[in-house]
Amino acid sequence: MDLYDRIFDLCKRRGIIFPSFEIYGGVSGFYDYGPLGAILKRNIEDKWRDIFVRREGMVEIEASLVMPSVVFEASGHVEHFTDLMTQCVECKKAFRTDTILSERGIKIREGATAREIDELIINNEVTCPDCGGNLSPSEPFNLMFQVEIGPYGRTIKGYGRPEAAQGQFVNFKRVYAAMRERLPLGIAQIGRCMRNEISPRKGPIRLREFTIIDYEVFLDPEESKYPRIELVENVLLRIISAEEQEKGLEQVSIVTVNQALESGLIKSEALAYFMALASHFIEDLGIPKDKQRFREQLPDERAHYSLQTFDQEVWLERWGWTEISGHAYRTDFDLSRHMTYSGEDLRVYKSFEKPKSIKIPVINPNREKIREDFGGQANNVLKMLSNSDVFTVKGSLERSGFYELPGKKGIHLDNKHLEVLFRTEEAQGRWFIPHVAEPSFGIDRIFYAVLEYSHEKRRKRTVLKLPRDIAPIKAAIYPLVNKDGLPEFAQKIYSLLIDEGFWVEYDDSGSIGRRYARADEVGVPICITIDYQTIEDDTVTLRDLETWKQVRVKVDKLSILLKDYLNKKIVFEDLGIKLN
Amino acid sequence: MDLYDRIFDLCKRRGIIFPSFEIYGGVSGFYDYGPLGAILKRNIEDKWRDIFVRREGMVEIEASLVMPSVVFEASGHVEHFTDLMTQCVECKKAFRTDTILSERGIKIREGATAREIDELIINNEVTCPDCGGNLSPSEPFNLMFQVEIGPYGRTIKGYGRPEAAQGQFVNFKRVYAAMRERLPLGIAQIGRCMRNEISPRKGPIRLREFTIIDYEVFLDPEESKYPRIELVENVLLRIISAEEQEKGLEQVSIVTVNQALESGLIKSEALAYFMALASHFIEDLGIPKDKQRFREQLPDERAHYSLQTFDQEVWLERWGWTEISGHAYRTDFDLSRHMTYSGEDLRVYKSFEKPKSIKIPVINPNREKIREDFGGQANNVLKMLSNSDVFTVKGSLERSGFYELPGKKGIHLDNKHLEVLFRTEEAQGRWFIPHVAEPSFGIDRIFYAVLEYSHEKRRKRTVLKLPRDIAPIKAAIYPLVNKDGLPEFAQKIYSLLIDEGFWVEYDDSGSIGRRYARADEVGVPICITIDYQTIEDDTVTLRDLETWKQVRVKVDKLSILLKDYLNKKIVFEDLGIKLN
Repeated sequence: MDLYDRIFDLCKRRGIIFPSFEIYGGVSGFYDYGPLGAILKRNIEDKWRDIFVRREGMVEIEASLVMPSVVFEASGHVEHFTDLMTQCVECKKAFRTDTILSERGIKIREGATAREIDELIINNEVTCPDCGGNLSPSEPFNLMFQVEIGPYGRTIKGYGRPEAAQGQFVNFKRVYAAMRERLPLGIAQIGRCMRNEISPRKGPIRLREFTIIDYEVFLDPEESKYPRIELVENVLLRIISAEEQEKGLEQVSIVTVNQALESGLIKSEALAYFMALASHFIEDLGIPKDKQRFREQLPDERAHYSLQTFDQEVWLERWGWTEISGHAYRTDFDLSRHMTYSGEDLRVYKSFEKPKSIKIPVINPNREKIREDFGGQANNVLKMLSNSDVFTVKGSLERSGFYELPGKKGIHLDNKHLEVLFRTEEAQGRWFIPHVAEPSFGIDRIFYAVLEYSHEKRRKRTVLKLPRDIAPIKAAIYPLVNKDGLPEFAQKIYSLLIDEGFWVEYDDSGSIGRRYARADEVGVPICITIDYQTIEDDTVTLRDLETWKQVRVKVDKLSILLKDYLNKKIVFEDLGIKLN
Repeated sequence: MDLYDRIFDLCKRRGIIFPSFEIYGGVSGFYDYGPLGAILKRNIEDKWRDIFVRREGMVEIEASLVMPSVVFEASGHVEHFTDLMTQCVECKKAFRTDTILSERGIKIREGATAREIDELIINNEVTCPDCGGNLSPSEPFNLMFQVEIGPYGRTIKGYGRPEAAQGQFVNFKRVYAAMRERLPLGIAQIGRCMRNEISPRKGPIRLREFTIIDYEVFLDPEESKYPRIELVENVLLRIISAEEQEKGLEQVSIVTVNQALESGLIKSEALAYFMALASHFIEDLGIPKDKQRFREQLPDERAHYSLQTFDQEVWLERWGWTEISGHAYRTDFDLSRHMTYSGEDLRVYKSFEKPKSIKIPVINPNREKIREDFGGQANNVLKMLSNSDVFTVKGSLERSGFYELPGKKGIHLDNKHLEVLFRTEEAQGRWFIPHVAEPSFGIDRIFYAVLEYSHEKRRKRTVLKLPRDIAPIKAAIYPLVNKDGLPEFAQKIYSLLIDEGFWVEYDDSGSIGRRYARADEVGVPICITIDYQTIEDDTVTLRDLETWKQVRVKVDKLSILLKDYLNKKIVFEDLGIKLN
């Protein structure tokens, strides 16, 4: 049994996390959280929310999981959210083509076409790992779950969302207005997503249903400064640059946020700011800095609209370096696309401190060339063009080399058909499409990583040394024996702590040693024992998970000291008091 | 504008809740929560969790939203989770048949067949409300969203869950074991569900995607006593019995929990216990007791397996009495069905205090009759019967009059084929299938009801008098003017309260009166103003939402007093201090 198996053995036994629908044999890629797991997961989410939203003065929303197709046409998911799939012609089992090749140690060139990849299968004589049958040519398989919304004959095609981010983009205008039009504006979502993975076989690392935190931070692209950047300028980040990887190296650079920005290693202050927060967040969950790194995605690897993307990875025993969060600078891609597809103006307006003369881009169509290329449709094209948003047109020309008229597939206008000129004008302010920096976290992976890093064998026993601020059960209350008034006293302490808002449990069965062992296994930070001395002097014995040390504490100080201890304001020894 | 419209006007403007995908024209039945709405919704969920789970020593899990078809075959949803639908033969628009009839004031007899209902359409000359076209015969429409799990050609049919409860049933065994086999065991889930409503037209009251709290409380059916029942025995409940309704009356009886149990009005202590908690929970959210009632479902209305069901209803201005929670005694239906469909033994074992002689039911097959009716299959039937669980067989015979062999559709065994006899035996304990009492809450409806009851016009202004413990923003911090060191002081207080864990906001724009008005509209309980006196004597002015009164408070007492005030431990006047 490797560490992963040992952890899952514990998880099943103690009800932390386990495969869904087990009584029906399960379906791969689905896991359920049991009583302790559900609290631990929520505590991780709450901690994230506290650091990234509440303390930052940012906001969170809750959008729908099912969204109509047009949202994912605009986002590009309908077209691009695919994996190459191959099937065994004998047993019909399906595989991700990249997985089946990498398991045979065959590397796929970044940017390789499906044909080139299929050639790798043929040339390397790769066959079905289950039955040895031949594999079919690869075809793209869209990973979204499709649903039909509404009754027969009147349905709207929809999808279960494969990421949460689109909720922020389609709601941007409303939220921006409600937050009184300020930038930067971070809008978070913590929620379920669904991806119909072809053949998920990595436990909670690759799920068909999972919890994501997508955090879209909307920015003024002309403000390169991020407001609170000074707070993190000396934070050390461990980075592997794309340049380094392209040389075939995996050398980690340890640099301050300041150095990373000054050297151009990180291209956006907002990105750097939240990478620093993410590094701190993960460390605070018990995963040391040297088991974390930020790997810059290679140009071929990242989405075409992304200026720069870093994967935050942690080291896991079975899976190696594993992505747990992504940090992408998405430019104005998302809002631009939704502008084009919805016809809604998603630009924002910013007043200048005083009026100034600015250059305003205007579309200057080449009427002759348009007539030549589009004949009878030319007048219509010219009319649509005059109604088009110049920023969208300009952005599209710059990104793709052409501009497609909304709803007119195939009508591509390029630099021959129009140019964008600049007119100088006295202006009170400017309209622009905000850019987006997006930190995005995979909660189920983080959850598993937390278990792996808190799991230890101590004197042949399993101890789950969870950080005490996220431990699901904060304290266990034990009467030493079940007589002589001890249970009544223990129940009083249980009620006291419940009234003070703690998650605590009462346990009166088995020896104290056995009760400690049960608590250690699920990371209970403090065990409170009520013994004969308690009745004499109103003190109880506290025993801590981290050091197994013991102190005695006055009952009337218990709640306040426990609160400070759990919030990491004091250490365990501070809980002890001198008696008399 | 009625109250509903006024509330939604506010909700859109201040980013509380609004239609999803608005920039694409929206899809009916989908709503998103904006920044303030998301916190308010979470606060309501957290409050529920605190009352029903943490304080009760119960548990919560997080199961998958997508589940394979077999789960919903077992639960009965594939067969029964349907609405009758009719379509206009002209414009093709679809309608729920019951809605279209009730809108014309036509009553459907409980238990009416589809044919009878269609006759009502014909006899009353009901036509399409949109275009006047004729309506098609009604047909059942399954309200679950269907998905295909896995790649082409190897898919498993699944559904988005229409309720959360099945997650608890399929995971019962694991959770029961992890919680060390104790009953009663309450297992909660708070999460998204999906129902493909035919034509939802009631805003957040009827949604295609919504948040449910399903709480399955597993019980020993032979323990009629619920452990903590004494705590609520004098709680007053407002109940309309089924008997009363059958007489055509709507008279509410106001009875204590004790009276309701003794008179048999409520048939289960567990049900009564949680109805009392639910009544308290809703009242604490600002909805007075006299705007709540428990309506017992009529025998025809409730599921056939339910012994008794109450709908907790609240009065809403536009929608009248509206169900916000349901309280059903579900017997052993769910676990029995999953036992049958999965073949897993979901019974639990309870030791007697000392061995006693008990009657054990055994299946006594009538071999002759089985041979006669099933011919060549008889041996197989007998073999399967001998492997069948006697409790499942017995339960099925009692409920349905027959027992269907697992996986053998159409092989119905009834009292002619077998009888259940009792053998007396000395036993250490007994095996049984737990019963379930299920309180179930619709969070989106509760959310809307909270807005409706906290909404008031005061001196021509909108005030959202949210209960302070669930208010999204706890305090707003205002420097009186933006000079003379006041902003710096105000920022210090903002940081102090952020560090103490409060959700607070800083606002320095516009007159104080205008800032108060903005805060009142979204239910900020306390506004804190920093003025010139603050710099002199370290006091700030607090102004409360509920009474618009003001007091001055020492800065060093602010955090502790605010905490007590928000937890409803003290009243606003207690915040004030005598100076000097």
